[in-house]
Amino acid sequence: MPLRTFVYEEGQGLLTDLSLPELATKIGQTGVTFWIDCPRPEAAEIQKMGELFNLHPLAVEDLLNPQYRPKIDTYDNGLLIVLRDADVDRIQKSLSALELDLFLGRNFLITVHTERMECIEMALARLTSSAARILGRGPDYLAHTIIDLLVDDNLQLLSWLDEEIGELEEAIFTNPDKAALQQAAKLRKNIVYLQRVLGPQLELIRRLSGDELPFIKKSLRVYFRDVYDNLARINDLIFTYREVISTDMAIHQTLISNKLNEIMKTLTVIATIFLPLTFIASIYGMNFHFMPELDSPWGYPSVLALMFFIGGGMFWWFKRRGWFE
Amino acid sequence: MPLRTFVYEEGQGLLTDLSLPELATKIGQTGVTFWIDCPRPEAAEIQKMGELFNLHPLAVEDLLNPQYRPKIDTYDNGLLIVLRDADVDRIQKSLSALELDLFLGRNFLITVHTERMECIEMALARLTSSAARILGRGPDYLAHTIIDLLVDDNLQLLSWLDEEIGELEEAIFTNPDKAALQQAAKLRKNIVYLQRVLGPQLELIRRLSGDELPFIKKSLRVYFRDVYDNLARINDLIFTYREVISTDMAIHQTLISNKLNEIMKTLTVIATIFLPLTFIASIYGMNFHFMPELDSPWGYPSVLALMFFIGGGMFWWFKRRGWFE
Amino acid sequence: MPLRTFVYEEGQGLLTDLSLPELATKIGQTGVTFWIDCPRPEAAEIQKMGELFNLHPLAVEDLLNPQYRPKIDTYDNGLLIVLRDADVDRIQKSLSALELDLFLGRNFLITVHTERMECIEMALARLTSSAARILGRGPDYLAHTIIDLLVDDNLQLLSWLDEEIGELEEAIFTNPDKAALQQAAKLRKNIVYLQRVLGPQLELIRRLSGDELPFIKKSLRVYFRDVYDNLARINDLIFTYREVISTDMAIHQTLISNKLNEIMKTLTVIATIFLPLTFIASIYGMNFHFMPELDSPWGYPSVLALMFFIGGGMFWWFKRRGWFE
Amino acid sequence: MPLRTFVYEEGQGLLTDLSLPELATKIGQTGVTFWIDCPRPEAAEIQKMGELFNLHPLAVEDLLNPQYRPKIDTYDNGLLIVLRDADVDRIQKSLSALELDLFLGRNFLITVHTERMECIEMALARLTSSAARILGRGPDYLAHTIIDLLVDDNLQLLSWLDEEIGELEEAIFTNPDKAALQQAAKLRKNIVYLQRVLGPQLELIRRLSGDELPFIKKSLRVYFRDVYDNLARINDLIFTYREVISTDMAIHQTLISNKLNEIMKTLTVIATIFLPLTFIASIYGMNFHFMPELDSPWGYPSVLALMFFIGGGMFWWFKRRGWFE
Amino acid sequence: MPLRTFVYEEGQGLLTDLSLPELATKIGQTGVTFWIDCPRPEAAEIQKMGELFNLHPLAVEDLLNPQYRPKIDTYDNGLLIVLRDADVDRIQKSLSALELDLFLGRNFLITVHTERMECIEMALARLTSSAARILGRGPDYLAHTIIDLLVDDNLQLLSWLDEEIGELEEAIFTNPDKAALQQAAKLRKNIVYLQRVLGPQLELIRRLSGDELPFIKKSLRVYFRDVYDNLARINDLIFTYREVISTDMAIHQTLISNKLNEIMKTLTVIATIFLPLTFIASIYGMNFHFMPELDSPWGYPSVLALMFFIGGGMFWWFKRRGWFE
Repeated sequence: MPLRTFVYEEGQGLLTDLSLPELATKIGQTGVTFWIDCPRPEAAEIQKMGELFNLHPLAVEDLLNPQYRPKIDTYDNGLLIVLRDADVDRIQKSLSALELDLFLGRNFLITVHTERMECIEMALARLTSSAARILGRGPDYLAHTIIDLLVDDNLQLLSWLDEEIGELEEAIFTNPDKAALQQAAKLRKNIVYLQRVLGPQLELIRRLSGDELPFIKKSLRVYFRDVYDNLARINDLIFTYREVISTDMAIHQTLISNKLNEIMKTLTVIATIFLPLTFIASIYGMNFHFMPELDSPWGYPSVLALMFFIGGGMFWWFKRRGWFE
Repeated sequence: MPLRTFVYEEGQGLLTDLSLPELATKIGQTGVTFWIDCPRPEAAEIQKMGELFNLHPLAVEDLLNPQYRPKIDTYDNGLLIVLRDADVDRIQKSLSALELDLFLGRNFLITVHTERMECIEMALARLTSSAARILGRGPDYLAHTIIDLLVDDNLQLLSWLDEEIGELEEAIFTNPDKAALQQAAKLRKNIVYLQRVLGPQLELIRRLSGDELPFIKKSLRVYFRDVYDNLARINDLIFTYREVISTDMAIHQTLISNKLNEIMKTLTVIATIFLPLTFIASIYGMNFHFMPELDSPWGYPSVLALMFFIGGGMFWWFKRRGWFE
Repeated sequence: MPLRTFVYEEGQGLLTDLSLPELATKIGQTGVTFWIDCPRPEAAEIQKMGELFNLHPLAVEDLLNPQYRPKIDTYDNGLLIVLRDADVDRIQKSLSALELDLFLGRNFLITVHTERMECIEMALARLTSSAARILGRGPDYLAHTIIDLLVDDNLQLLSWLDEEIGELEEAIFTNPDKAALQQAAKLRKNIVYLQRVLGPQLELIRRLSGDELPFIKKSLRVYFRDVYDNLARINDLIFTYREVISTDMAIHQTLISNKLNEIMKTLTVIATIFLPLTFIASIYGMNFHFMPELDSPWGYPSVLALMFFIGGGMFWWFKRRGWFE
Repeated sequence: MPLRTFVYEEGQGLLTDLSLPELATKIGQTGVTFWIDCPRPEAAEIQKMGELFNLHPLAVEDLLNPQYRPKIDTYDNGLLIVLRDADVDRIQKSLSALELDLFLGRNFLITVHTERMECIEMALARLTSSAARILGRGPDYLAHTIIDLLVDDNLQLLSWLDEEIGELEEAIFTNPDKAALQQAAKLRKNIVYLQRVLGPQLELIRRLSGDELPFIKKSLRVYFRDVYDNLARINDLIFTYREVISTDMAIHQTLISNKLNEIMKTLTVIATIFLPLTFIASIYGMNFHFMPELDSPWGYPSVLALMFFIGGGMFWWFKRRGWFE
Repeated sequence: MPLRTFVYEEGQGLLTDLSLPELATKIGQTGVTFWIDCPRPEAAEIQKMGELFNLHPLAVEDLLNPQYRPKIDTYDNGLLIVLRDADVDRIQKSLSALELDLFLGRNFLITVHTERMECIEMALARLTSSAARILGRGPDYLAHTIIDLLVDDNLQLLSWLDEEIGELEEAIFTNPDKAALQQAAKLRKNIVYLQRVLGPQLELIRRLSGDELPFIKKSLRVYFRDVYDNLARINDLIFTYREVISTDMAIHQTLISNKLNEIMKTLTVIATIFLPLTFIASIYGMNFHFMPELDSPWGYPSVLALMFFIGGGMFWWFKRRGWFE
């Protein structure tokens, strides 16, 4: 996909879709601010742009290759900021979070990403409607706008996790099966993944809101503090949910053990009552010629009575020991 | 609900329920202190008040929207303090903790909350009875009064948790069932929730009692240290109770296993004694024509004696191996 | 109970049991050192004493009410030190640790406690025998003496815990029952409680031995370092014992599972041997008119031989699979 | 194996395989840079080289003996850097990670290792093709090149772990047996080992990229930051996988418990239905002379009907209680 | 046992076994260095020596009584260093680690211990062979020599733990019994004990190698860094082994559960096949006069065929559900 270029000149408004040679003529003029967005960039484009804006070779290399970990690198002429977008849709599908690389210079911002990103499209929409309010306040304000939109988008994680945990708990307390366990395992893995991605990201945004970073105006810090609060909420909740899943799985295990006890009680009661009775019956089923009880008219009723008392006695004993509660 | 406004002027006492235009005339005069309480505020009101007291746009936005996480933000003309009220009633009903936003300026305090809050009402009662003693000492002292009342109210958590844990332990050691486990899960979730809300709040109040925060008089620090001690007690106990619940659940699991062993011992003793006896009886119940034992007059008593010795021997063997202890 | 007052004047020796008015005349004189011990204090007494020694209202309030958490608060004219006494007797009875509040001023020490405390009585005994050696070195040395005695007293926790753990382990490896588990649960709870009380106390004494705290002479630091070492030993051991209990409980659980396997093996061997045999016998107990085996003279011995081989074969099979090891 | 020596002189290009005496004549000249690689070194060689480059006796000793832990030691004339190479091949075979010792001086680099190392061979290949680009930028740049290659090589751990975890999870959710458990145990042990080796290594490389270490040019820090990012990714993933294995093993345990419940339900249903029926049949198999039911023509069908209703009733009862779900 | 005294005077060589009065005459001379080793010391000796070298009363007290925790105390005229010797022999016998107290002054070293210690004897042997190389470099170098030997001796822990873990794992994966569990419990306890003793010791040696401690020459720091590396290796491994034991015990628990499932499957298959068959046989063992099947010549073979199909069907059903895998 081609680069998308935006040039804001004071008093001139917004110019879009300039070619690189056109850009080259503008660079160096005062009062001009650039945004170059590179969706699915080709190596050649990034390299040409690196020469144009005089980027450090390592920065160019970082923009070309995926970085995976959120980070801020300080260069002589700008900040390289790597962010991950923990989008609900992708997390649900067990896809890894998208990466957004920003290079923020004195008067330009370069954004690089390999897929269409919601936060970029929304920033673009805002930019075209009010360029002066955004690019007019400098490329750092534009960077803040994009990062703010990215974190806002991730706030959907909160309601998604809430729902997932709710479903999981219902499954555990009603009808826990292998599917529920697999769901719990998947959810916990997603949560561990989110912690891994968003933990460093939170730290990164804390630095944006507090450190003496160059290329970011001091007046922007309160705005980044606001972004920080949003992301901190997500992190807090993720940490809590991890705890909750662990507890839920322990309870699940205990419920299974409880149920096993119920099953074994049933078996034991039945076996303990009927095994002795069957034994008694099988005694009088023996074919010995000399068994005086067999000839007595009271033999049969006596044995039935004996069986009744033994069976009833066992039942009463189990009852008294609380096996039927 | 309408705003509630309080203006204290030295020598003039307390004026209440002024309209915004009336307030506007007072602002800028020296020796005047304001408290504006906004229960269930409307966006327009907050915005007008923001203009009146010249608040930063982000502070106004934070007052308008729920913030969830306790925090202190420093602005040029005041501190924005966000607190949560971990009220026992709400926690019991699994409702989230209420939020109280304070904006503390040089000579004014704005409080924003969406529900009736006990601590605000009590502060109001104190204020009307002795305005000079509270607002006369500055808006920071009033803020301290409100925060102190909020934390005092939360001290009820201590006795509630104590009681809950007591009940839980009794259930576990007497008659553990699914309901007890669900109660344990709910209690542990509440405790994790409380830790999440009160942990940052403790840190926040530590900053109020120690940092070089502007807008808070140095002489007030010992008072905030006192609030800190109260909240720290709650936090300590919550941490302890979390440990206790984990231990209790592990013990519960072990008790269940113990009980299963008892059940299986019963079954095994019964089966091991009666299965062989029944087998012997069934041998002599076979209908073979040629079974010499059947014709012997000693057959029946001999078999009975054999059964008695086998049964007794097994019983003695189980006894010796300690199965009946 | 009345206050106990001790006044040491250089060259005059120790005066005891002065009334508050008598004290008032001494305050302000140079070379005079005071110790006021308040067992089971009444509010009025504390308040009068607060006025006498010019204490901050918050310090007076803290002396009046239980504080629960160990802490040091610095005031303009003294240090408020709150300590807990983790006495073995009380811990064994699941009573909470006693609280001792000290207010250490330039030339006076106030101690407040609600029950008779061993460390106070022992400090008193030492004081009466050698007042110059203790109060002559200042109220901070007296405070050190009391705190040292308190920690020395707590060293008994070490041998008590050692014994408890020993008993617990013996119970677990010989005859684990519900009582043993309840004991383990109680012990673990005591340990968690001790950690909660003594953890902050250790930190507090570290500050006494290291920080630039006012009102404590620099030369006393090595003495507090010594107290710190003692308390640190208790803390170390408590931490270790918590680990040990967790391991012991996990092993207990495994032992129970092992035992269940033994029980089930017994049951399975018996059932697997006798169920098929009984089935064979019951076949020849059927009353069909046409059963040729019944008429054969070899029928009975053949069936007995068959049963012997089946039973023996099963036994051999279990033996080979290692079920009897 | 003999030492391999490389000398780069500005304007002269690269000289290789110089003897120690030849080296001695070059040391002290300006504009000369040395790399001495010592594969499987002998003590005498290292000692001679130590004298040549004037190394501290402890540094020589460290180069001679395995150090095991990654570390940086600062000496007056150089840095001793100890690294471990967590090569996938070796980890798979449960071999310990190889050790690479570097001594980085003002104008020389010494590398010591006991086995052929991939990163050294690749650095050597690059060096011979473009000596000026590497040694021309100083020995610290060469050290960076070697360390970068070492970490790049370790990135293969990521895909290996990913695969192993995938296989493990499939085994757990389909057919968990002892072999799967042993594999899980081995994998977890490998992961704990990797954490132990790579954790300090990450810290070490963070120091290389940030600290004010002597002997490393400031302009190289961005390059070491890049190496740090790579290693941090590996560490993050290892931490995550450790979590995942723990969860998987807990789920495995729960699945086993679930299966046991299924087995016991089967047994209980069968026993509960047939034990009472067999008991009834055995009653009418008794040989009492006086059993009126036996003579009735309705006796047999009535008993069959009774058995049918009892068996069917039990079945219905189990069905209703949800045992067949 | 008597004290052992060593005096090194420059130019004079080593004098041994001086009495205290002889020592007294030497103290205060320049260029003289002392080592006093006190095995199994008597209180009187230590006190006399304390006066001689002018030790602080608390230091003397610490030398007299066991201190248990590793620590460094700084006094005006020296460092008190308390170390523990985690000797393999003692750990194996569950004996506590020996304690070694060192007092390091400007020109003297005092060592106190209650048992013969390997590191002291080895230091003594080195001293007598080359006094100038050791005491000639100052008492701090002698202290380093002793501490280095102590840590070197503890390196044997590594191979011992390795072997123990190996044996434990073999027991767990082949024939786990109560003895194996008791061994695991004892090993884990030893490891927790070692962590408790060696953790603070590592921190202590880090301070010796890095802090601005008085009485230790700056040039000695690289030597203590070397000792630190050795001890850090032991600590790393102990931490790892603790993890490994926890994993092994969890796997052991799972193996037991797996085995229980096998046992219960056997029981269930046998009972499920033979209980219904025995029931059928017992039906035809009933003595009803009117049972038409009994008179049919096909009755017996039909019933046998029915039994064969029922038994075979069940077997096939279990096979299909994978119970025999």
